[in-house]
Amino acid sequence: MDTLTHSEITALFLALGLLLATARLFGELARRFSLPAVLGEILAGILWGPTIFGTLAPEWRAFIFPRQGGGALAFDGLTTLAIVLFLLVAGMEINLSTVWRQGKVALWVALVGMSVPFSLGFAVAWWSPDLVGYQPGVNPLAFALFMATALSISALPIIAKILMDLNIYRSDLGVTVIAAAVLNDLLGWLVFAVVLGMLGAGNGMPFGHTLWLTLTFTSAMLTVVPWCIHRLLPWIQAHTSWPGGVLGFALSFCLISAAFTEWIGIHAIFGSFLAGVALGHSSHLRERTRATIDQFVSFIFAPLFFASIGLKVNFAEHFDPLLTLTVLGLALTGKVAGSALGGRFGGLSWRDALGIGFGMSAQGTMGMILGVLALQFGLINQQVFVSLVVMALVTSLISGPMLQIILRLKKPRRFLDYLQPQGFVNRLEATDRWEAIRDLSQITAPLVGLDPQMVTSAILAREKIMATGIGKGVAVPHTRLPGLYAPVVTIGLSRVGIDFDAPDGTPAHIICLILTPVNDDGVQLEILADIATTFKTKEVREKAISVAGFTEFLALVRSGQAR
Amino acid sequence: MDTLTHSEITALFLALGLLLATARLFGELARRFSLPAVLGEILAGILWGPTIFGTLAPEWRAFIFPRQGGGALAFDGLTTLAIVLFLLVAGMEINLSTVWRQGKVALWVALVGMSVPFSLGFAVAWWSPDLVGYQPGVNPLAFALFMATALSISALPIIAKILMDLNIYRSDLGVTVIAAAVLNDLLGWLVFAVVLGMLGAGNGMPFGHTLWLTLTFTSAMLTVVPWCIHRLLPWIQAHTSWPGGVLGFALSFCLISAAFTEWIGIHAIFGSFLAGVALGHSSHLRERTRATIDQFVSFIFAPLFFASIGLKVNFAEHFDPLLTLTVLGLALTGKVAGSALGGRFGGLSWRDALGIGFGMSAQGTMGMILGVLALQFGLINQQVFVSLVVMALVTSLISGPMLQIILRLKKPRRFLDYLQPQGFVNRLEATDRWEAIRDLSQITAPLVGLDPQMVTSAILAREKIMATGIGKGVAVPHTRLPGLYAPVVTIGLSRVGIDFDAPDGTPAHIICLILTPVNDDGVQLEILADIATTFKTKEVREKAISVAGFTEFLALVRSGQAR
Repeated sequence: MDTLTHSEITALFLALGLLLATARLFGELARRFSLPAVLGEILAGILWGPTIFGTLAPEWRAFIFPRQGGGALAFDGLTTLAIVLFLLVAGMEINLSTVWRQGKVALWVALVGMSVPFSLGFAVAWWSPDLVGYQPGVNPLAFALFMATALSISALPIIAKILMDLNIYRSDLGVTVIAAAVLNDLLGWLVFAVVLGMLGAGNGMPFGHTLWLTLTFTSAMLTVVPWCIHRLLPWIQAHTSWPGGVLGFALSFCLISAAFTEWIGIHAIFGSFLAGVALGHSSHLRERTRATIDQFVSFIFAPLFFASIGLKVNFAEHFDPLLTLTVLGLALTGKVAGSALGGRFGGLSWRDALGIGFGMSAQGTMGMILGVLALQFGLINQQVFVSLVVMALVTSLISGPMLQIILRLKKPRRFLDYLQPQGFVNRLEATDRWEAIRDLSQITAPLVGLDPQMVTSAILAREKIMATGIGKGVAVPHTRLPGLYAPVVTIGLSRVGIDFDAPDGTPAHIICLILTPVNDDGVQLEILADIATTFKTKEVREKAISVAGFTEFLALVRSGQAR
Repeated sequence: MDTLTHSEITALFLALGLLLATARLFGELARRFSLPAVLGEILAGILWGPTIFGTLAPEWRAFIFPRQGGGALAFDGLTTLAIVLFLLVAGMEINLSTVWRQGKVALWVALVGMSVPFSLGFAVAWWSPDLVGYQPGVNPLAFALFMATALSISALPIIAKILMDLNIYRSDLGVTVIAAAVLNDLLGWLVFAVVLGMLGAGNGMPFGHTLWLTLTFTSAMLTVVPWCIHRLLPWIQAHTSWPGGVLGFALSFCLISAAFTEWIGIHAIFGSFLAGVALGHSSHLRERTRATIDQFVSFIFAPLFFASIGLKVNFAEHFDPLLTLTVLGLALTGKVAGSALGGRFGGLSWRDALGIGFGMSAQGTMGMILGVLALQFGLINQQVFVSLVVMALVTSLISGPMLQIILRLKKPRRFLDYLQPQGFVNRLEATDRWEAIRDLSQITAPLVGLDPQMVTSAILAREKIMATGIGKGVAVPHTRLPGLYAPVVTIGLSRVGIDFDAPDGTPAHIICLILTPVNDDGVQLEILADIATTFKTKEVREKAISVAGFTEFLALVRSGQAR
């Protein structure tokens, strides 16, 4: 029986450990700068791949990330499993009912927003194939269809994340974008499945069979199968251990669907995506089960897969600026213009329509997945692959900021954004509120270069007008100050409690001193609301006043919130 | 670059999906009969392996579960990853502080309970190697050491599960068994690491190096590393997205440890086991993060690994009854006698000492993992492998019942055990408690073959003595009845609510009618307590009265409880 050798196992685990650690680290760094985590994850792969590590230490790279032999095959199997599971989660996020709710507009945006970039991509790839990196010997129709699909797909997970960050996920516009992206994804994957089927993908099945099997399977997974699953899940939850029964069912269903679509000549990911759609449809899939799958996949398998993209080619050597610009230009023009046009047809204002256009333009993860498969099947060369990855990243990067500019949106601001480690007093010794305010002002003023005396008296004056105890053990002494350019928050924890004359009469244990600029634009209210929400539950308040230091406090406040 | 072919991917996903589905299904069936889930999981593998499916449809088996080529290598990589992650979770369950708390007795049980079966196993394998299946050409010292370890290890996860099922996990005796099993596991794996090191395991490192690297690594992972992790975790939780930061850290740490121990010539699982011990030690690892890792591993990776054990050999062909009986006899005698002796030395009564002996005797998962590795390294043949697997299963099967008999324990009884689908009334139309009791009695009586009139009047008589509304919308009319051999529970849900004169004045929405035999032995009290606990939270009560039917009700009550 073939098994991995000792050194192959060593290398495999080392590779997985290093990739995962670096991908997570870079992913977190990217988030820190408000960039998509996937950017950091791909950079981690580029670091370990032929581009950097492979150039600096080729022998080490060949040992840890082998390109031949058992280790390479096992790694390939794992990353294929990773992307199959990623598409399961992507499918689970698709909620077909939102499409019906938003109805007409979403349909317009999806159809026009897909057909314009598709036609544009197809036209260019068919009549000027050299412009988009066509290599002789490849089936020109398959190439043109692939480029058209690659330019017209959008990345639902990335788009959802961008809308959530901008706090417009549940607005009319947000729901329209999501609904249109859902339709777009479904159609896009169906077309791509057909492209893969045309290539034969090695199974030797006639294309006609592949086509009707694909269409039958897709319709079943959108109609009969979700209906059965919805009826099956309560039975599974009733008769098996929880959540093992549902987890096992969801994953084996996903794997068998994946095997089926791989067998009929389209890719395994198509099956797991539809399995996700069918599963996610049922309201019986509990939040906890969903979260367990989602967390394990998003934080373990997805980073591994996206890092493996960086491993595939040398991004420095195969970067063709002209090609990349062409692909990027085509993708942006087609997608933004098409979706905006669709929005107009649906009756939206120009501003909203353009917002939707940029909202739909993020290609992120999905564009890259298409690229990986096309490279594997020899449909595109490494230059086109690199340009597709760059295009997918750039469109994801600019989508959020453009949406923000066009719709004149602001990101919600959190009090943590204005809290520094020096502004955290774990054991506030003051016994009354005047003393507490004086102590905290003395600490706050130097942090922003203001006179402590001035800060103290301004806050005290405000406090005298009306006490700032907001109840449940929280007090928020605050004021607006001239000479301040950004808000600053200082937090003091009092173990004994200080009377801040709260409506509910309880003494304050968590005292948040808030200074905001005079031209405040509402930040004070946002911070106050955020503090009230953060310390809403008794559990968080009790844990807050027993932390050992600033880091633990941060950990508590961050992990307490739903993400 | 080597990648899996189209048909290899099809087969791989099909294999994973089929194995997972069957393993989960059989695992649940095993639980239904109060047997360990691992038994069902191995049976699933035996079904798909050479024993059954391979005999019936050899070509299909060769396609889905290939023994050569890329698919076999990818499958091997995945099952190796699965067992590495399983040992991470096993390690996380180890809490060294319990060892110190139980101190002397645990130390005696662990030391004597390990050295007796170890010496017995070593003596037999050294002086009568043929008795335990020694095959010429194998290093006799390594073989004797391996057999000694295999006969003296115990399976902490299985033992913990048995003690929890018997409700003595937190008793003095339970804590002693767990503490001793923790020590036993640590020592056992250390010895096994040494055996693997002796074999060279293919890395060409001198045995001396392997030995001191193993000892240094083990001591670091038990002292310095947990200390560092405990300080690092709050920082990670504070500065990264939750729970992704901690999940990514835990898994990459585990994978790199695994790679390290594989590199120094002991197996990867040793590194992930110690990584689990180091991680689990920190109280900063939140319950939710622990649960996410635990659920994904226990319900997905573990079933896959244990099913793969059944795939490895033909269990019918290589089953040697005499060898199996010898191994089983040696394991049971050594382990039970040794641990019981240790308990006596620690000052326990004979009864308790014997209970501990049988508690420690479950070899379950760990014995099999040793067997898999030894087979892979050619240390044992297929006959010995089969006998080790059977021995591990049998010891796990008899440990619980023997403990129950010796300590005269009872399993806690739940009201669900006595509720039948016919005994569930989703919409009780009654408007007062007398009518409700009459309606439910009419339904209950035929289920147990009693006269409805008699049942009704008995319950009404009891209700008149004292009303059975226990508050929070729950009422429990009940009585003991002659002619009844087992308890029976009937549940009626009232949407409008029925006054049962509860102390808190709220009308009852959930009415549980309970009949118990006259010679009751406390089952009535257990059922009453179980009902009160089940409907303790408002959320469960509200969901209970809005279920669509019996299956949903079962699902709610089962998934509501912590498991």
